[in-house]
Amino acid sequence: MPVGDVDTPALLLDLDAFDRNLRKMAEVSRRTGVRVRPHTKTHKCPVIAMKQIELGAVGQCCQKVGEAEILVAGGVRNVLVSNEVVGDRKLLRLAALARDAEIGLCVDAPEQVEAAGRAAREFGVELAALVEIDVGMTRCGVAPGEPAVALAKQIAATRGLRFGGLQAYHGTAQHLPTWGEREAAIAIAVEKTRATVAALAAAGLACPIVGGAGTGTFQFESTSGVYNELQVGSYVFMDTDYARIGGKTSNRYDEFDHSLFVLATVMSRPTADRAVVDAGLKSYSMEKGVPWVHGLDDVEVTGVSDEHGRLRVGAGAKPLKLGDKVWLIPGHCDPTVNLHDWYVGVRNGRVEALWPIAARGCSH
Amino acid sequence: MPVGDVDTPALLLDLDAFDRNLRKMAEVSRRTGVRVRPHTKTHKCPVIAMKQIELGAVGQCCQKVGEAEILVAGGVRNVLVSNEVVGDRKLLRLAALARDAEIGLCVDAPEQVEAAGRAAREFGVELAALVEIDVGMTRCGVAPGEPAVALAKQIAATRGLRFGGLQAYHGTAQHLPTWGEREAAIAIAVEKTRATVAALAAAGLACPIVGGAGTGTFQFESTSGVYNELQVGSYVFMDTDYARIGGKTSNRYDEFDHSLFVLATVMSRPTADRAVVDAGLKSYSMEKGVPWVHGLDDVEVTGVSDEHGRLRVGAGAKPLKLGDKVWLIPGHCDPTVNLHDWYVGVRNGRVEALWPIAARGCSH
Repeated sequence: MPVGDVDTPALLLDLDAFDRNLRKMAEVSRRTGVRVRPHTKTHKCPVIAMKQIELGAVGQCCQKVGEAEILVAGGVRNVLVSNEVVGDRKLLRLAALARDAEIGLCVDAPEQVEAAGRAAREFGVELAALVEIDVGMTRCGVAPGEPAVALAKQIAATRGLRFGGLQAYHGTAQHLPTWGEREAAIAIAVEKTRATVAALAAAGLACPIVGGAGTGTFQFESTSGVYNELQVGSYVFMDTDYARIGGKTSNRYDEFDHSLFVLATVMSRPTADRAVVDAGLKSYSMEKGVPWVHGLDDVEVTGVSDEHGRLRVGAGAKPLKLGDKVWLIPGHCDPTVNLHDWYVGVRNGRVEALWPIAARGCSH
Repeated sequence: MPVGDVDTPALLLDLDAFDRNLRKMAEVSRRTGVRVRPHTKTHKCPVIAMKQIELGAVGQCCQKVGEAEILVAGGVRNVLVSNEVVGDRKLLRLAALARDAEIGLCVDAPEQVEAAGRAAREFGVELAALVEIDVGMTRCGVAPGEPAVALAKQIAATRGLRFGGLQAYHGTAQHLPTWGEREAAIAIAVEKTRATVAALAAAGLACPIVGGAGTGTFQFESTSGVYNELQVGSYVFMDTDYARIGGKTSNRYDEFDHSLFVLATVMSRPTADRAVVDAGLKSYSMEKGVPWVHGLDDVEVTGVSDEHGRLRVGAGAKPLKLGDKVWLIPGHCDPTVNLHDWYVGVRNGRVEALWPIAARGCSH
């Protein structure tokens, strides 16, 4: 089917750009010797997970037990929930997965170590428990250094658990506007992590995983000599939020190609300077701003409602008529993907693949 | 099951508040003699649609053919797509529904009148075609007056279609900050609509439906003497975006009660003044700002990421520990609902109903 025949709104994946992004990150891993553990929260799709693993990724990380369930059912055999898991029901679901796959989770409180151990023993499995340390994002995590060592010791002494290492992700650094600001933020994170790894070593505890990094900062973690796993997600798709930050040598971060688009149809042409498309904030996430129009000169999104996108059509624009298709680049890829049930994979103007977004809505 | 046992994130519906909201709008309809045609784009749930109809609503309106399909399958027999429908495939799907229900749609271009007529004739059905006029929101729609009359005449002359009236919705008026501003905006919309109805009458065309209004302005359309159908949606749930606008006599719009909540669990307590919950922007829409914390003094959401909400816990707050549940009021109800598969209906602290959000994701 030609792309022009795809009914809208649809989530398109440009397979050439997508393949380039996947290979580029695999090459980073080969060059630096640092493992890649891509983040499922971005793509929510076991098909994509398996492609990443085929290119050398060690497994996947994810934020929720529901995502881990989809991954294991889809054939992934090494899953880290890079997040705290609270509640016995969720912990038991996670422990059940450890019968079929290597499963890890993060902890930042003593009672959570106990609860995870109980769940693992219930299923006769072993879970890798990583201590999350706060390296600068002030979200979850214990302080680096001694508090982390205390929790690691508790893990090592808990039946059903093994100490899995450190979760040291600096989320707020990912979108700092300039390369230099991101480098400086991660330099601080690296020192906190290095000191914690050393304190753990002094206590006789080695870190199988020292994980963190995202698409905005992996260049720094991957060459830090401390981190050994990169939890990159958005690099497979890109979005305007990442495109807007500065690169190493340019004002725009263009390490990766835009591969993700929302395909929309012009549904109204009320005036010469206004067109309305049939995709709104139920087809792309809006908290990072309106989407960019791809490949059309002098056309931009000026307003969005539930099911409409309003376009300003400038004097320099080509004619745009009812039924014409418009490619939109979402502001934020992860929550945009979570609104759709399928990727429509396209190459050379034709539909080549339909991949289910199997973990869509799996926030539980 | 007690509400406290519901796993999170979950979309809760306070059934008492919900029932009060439904009855209040039904009473507006009885008092003014203006029909209510509630908007499915808010709730996406045939169970709720049927409850509205049971209380006197004439049917439902919706934005997309996919929503109309779910409504008709769920038993609704009168559906207006309050929106343009572009593309033969979509028009044929809509015409197919007219074998089982009364179906209307909106048009704002001559070629769309032709396309809708062709689709209707293909199925041997009749579609009601309403002319959308732009009464102030500058989205879709032709200008009021003669352009609307020209399109209405074309509809009346098209086999397979009947002229259904006017779609005269003023979306941008709904959230104007003060009662007076909303009243003034709708006064202008009413005059444009009144003049168009008169011009149509002069051409021998009566308007079975003169539709518009939303939760923020229905008080004005319902007493205008021109509008005969209210397309209210958000009144069933409310959200912070509506709560923030001014009421008639107060700074807060409190005509309706908050009935919709995202239930979240405290998953990390890193510091005395910070708690993190397990629901982020994949559980509630964020383009209208962070959710409000319900029923907890001196606790507020200060940051949100994909699967986390960061709370500031003030000195005046009650203790908040790992596993505690927090009720969040979403910023914008419609796109929040679209992230979930089920309503968990609760009353007196217990789960009483599970209603599927059957039209979740039906933007096609």
